[in-house]
Amino acid sequence: MQSTHLREHNLSAVLRALQAAGEPTSRAGLASLTRLTKPTVSKLVEELIGAGLISEGDPISAGAGRPMVPLRPAAGTLLAIGLEIAADHVSCLGVDLTGSELSRRTVYGRAASAEEAIARAAQLVREVRADAPDLPVVGVVAAVPGRISPDGRLVLSAPNLDWTDVPLVEGLRTHLAPEAGDIVALNDNRLSVLTEIDRRPGESFLYVRGSTGVGGAVVLEGSVLEGTHGWAGELGHTVVEPGGLTCRCGRRGCLEAYISYHALVEQAGLGPEVRIEDLVDELSRSSSRTEVIGVIGRSLGLAIANALNILDLSTVVLSGYLAPIAEEITPVVRETVTAHALAAEAGPISIERSDTTPDPALRGAARAALQPVFDAPGAWISRAATPAGRTA
Amino acid sequence: MQSTHLREHNLSAVLRALQAAGEPTSRAGLASLTRLTKPTVSKLVEELIGAGLISEGDPISAGAGRPMVPLRPAAGTLLAIGLEIAADHVSCLGVDLTGSELSRRTVYGRAASAEEAIARAAQLVREVRADAPDLPVVGVVAAVPGRISPDGRLVLSAPNLDWTDVPLVEGLRTHLAPEAGDIVALNDNRLSVLTEIDRRPGESFLYVRGSTGVGGAVVLEGSVLEGTHGWAGELGHTVVEPGGLTCRCGRRGCLEAYISYHALVEQAGLGPEVRIEDLVDELSRSSSRTEVIGVIGRSLGLAIANALNILDLSTVVLSGYLAPIAEEITPVVRETVTAHALAAEAGPISIERSDTTPDPALRGAARAALQPVFDAPGAWISRAATPAGRTA
Repeated sequence: MQSTHLREHNLSAVLRALQAAGEPTSRAGLASLTRLTKPTVSKLVEELIGAGLISEGDPISAGAGRPMVPLRPAAGTLLAIGLEIAADHVSCLGVDLTGSELSRRTVYGRAASAEEAIARAAQLVREVRADAPDLPVVGVVAAVPGRISPDGRLVLSAPNLDWTDVPLVEGLRTHLAPEAGDIVALNDNRLSVLTEIDRRPGESFLYVRGSTGVGGAVVLEGSVLEGTHGWAGELGHTVVEPGGLTCRCGRRGCLEAYISYHALVEQAGLGPEVRIEDLVDELSRSSSRTEVIGVIGRSLGLAIANALNILDLSTVVLSGYLAPIAEEITPVVRETVTAHALAAEAGPISIERSDTTPDPALRGAARAALQPVFDAPGAWISRAATPAGRTA
Repeated sequence: MQSTHLREHNLSAVLRALQAAGEPTSRAGLASLTRLTKPTVSKLVEELIGAGLISEGDPISAGAGRPMVPLRPAAGTLLAIGLEIAADHVSCLGVDLTGSELSRRTVYGRAASAEEAIARAAQLVREVRADAPDLPVVGVVAAVPGRISPDGRLVLSAPNLDWTDVPLVEGLRTHLAPEAGDIVALNDNRLSVLTEIDRRPGESFLYVRGSTGVGGAVVLEGSVLEGTHGWAGELGHTVVEPGGLTCRCGRRGCLEAYISYHALVEQAGLGPEVRIEDLVDELSRSSSRTEVIGVIGRSLGLAIANALNILDLSTVVLSGYLAPIAEEITPVVRETVTAHALAAEAGPISIERSDTTPDPALRGAARAALQPVFDAPGAWISRAATPAGRTA
């Protein structure tokens, strides 16, 4: 048992080191990164190459001595599937072990029911899977704008989807063959922030994301704060106006009641089917633009200031629909944050715009779906498609 | 160098293990706790006994085999000094390595200036020191109700003392002989929470303390969240009423503006020199009692709910002047927290009363002043008073 466990641990250490390195790395480089001996690393690398989890590039000569053989996670040998279930669309993304996109599908428009949304999502998973029929599927991770049970199976509450206690995983399973692998639901903001953490390794920051709702994540030295139920960072339901507007969650005065997609649609006087991108465009042309920016800036600023006082952080990252309007809202946000956050006494609070891809929750979901391979590569050694050899 | 470092590390591991065990422990027990070998532990224990940092009790026979010799941190061989500088009093506490009180002094009444408060504090340190003239002094830690510079020397802002940029450590130094050891200032709430953590090892909770101001600390699995500047947990300046009452910090709508000592003195219609204990008594007899309890409960509940949404914690501990009135305010606090905290959807939020000593900041300061001995016992081996031997 001990040696099986040790082998699994070492296989994982090598594969994770290669992922974290972010560039082709030699066996000697991996030995240095993992603090394993070179012979041990060479043996593990051979297993991982044989299983199609690592690929070798062409040897690179660097002056005298043996040429360096670059290793990287293998392309096109496994399929991991990310789903995003949002108020106005469902998207599906298939990636391989390198994180490269293999296939992508989106259906726009609001589903009439949870059942319909789940059926759409399952159909997209089938299509993405059909685009790479020969690859073993690692699993599916679904990003959902709400609170999920700790086991990742039940959506407890997703006010912007009008979902309460929806058994998402069970629903997807009834539509999908068992070969779809493990299916797990996770909060969309917790998945989105993974891309931001990649850009800011080891940093601490408050991540605020506007999508259908407004959510966030607390990142402490590169790790997402989980909290008791995995719900930490729920900025959208902090109170910015006691006794104020009624939020879709039923509470009064929540930040979301002022700056969510629904709240903004109402302020802009638009129909219910408008896409967030179009909404932002509309707002930027609207005659009430200054007023809307003021409402967003002040309520967001207050929620952020309160969070910063509890967390004592000095960096805030605006993402989702807040990123494209960051330049406009930041002066108002900054004014409110500076007025109320104690950390502003020690130096300016940095309010930054996220530069992530336009679909960080979907990308984060696909990335999370890959994680089992990095955590326990041994299980995949017998299942991977490519039998052996050099693929670069 | 390596072996000096290793020896220091192991001495510290043994002494910390003995402190953490909280009960007399044998050499074999320490070997098991530290994962060091028994011969190594025996050698380290002899050094620590010789230096007066550990004492041996009388051997205890337990059936057959060698009798067990109980070890504990040595009593009466070192002096660590805690100070508390509050709006209405200055207190000083001297403890030995067991945490036992050796001497205590308090002066009541508000000091006219920072200089006067510092002079009073220094006088108390001298008196406590004079009560144990033969013991080497580890150092002095001062608990201050405000924000301290990261190096622990400057009080940046303590609104309830009317202090801004007060060089506390330098001030104390001018009054005290160099033999007072290291002097450091720390936030009173961060020190108070240490006692609570001892009672709840490994737990996660939001700690809220009412004293002259209202502060707190965030405890995640037994560790205090520091934040960028060491100011995390500053619940007192989260906004509970946007544009509301002006706080002593100059901001508007802070929790402290509604429930601080000063705010309550005003609500109770009392003079400025009333002690917190008397104020609480007065409030409980007051005809406006229900109204005051309502204000405290609602504003505190809102601040707590917002903090819980960011942190996703399910336990709140009320301490300081909030502890004796916890029973009265908890129903109102609970109502507001349940209405706004998402975690309440997963199960009841536990709102508990701290059972700590009446002066947790002072005790925490003394405890923190001991810490250098546990961190680096080697430095004390040459300085401790008792040359050798059994003291139990």
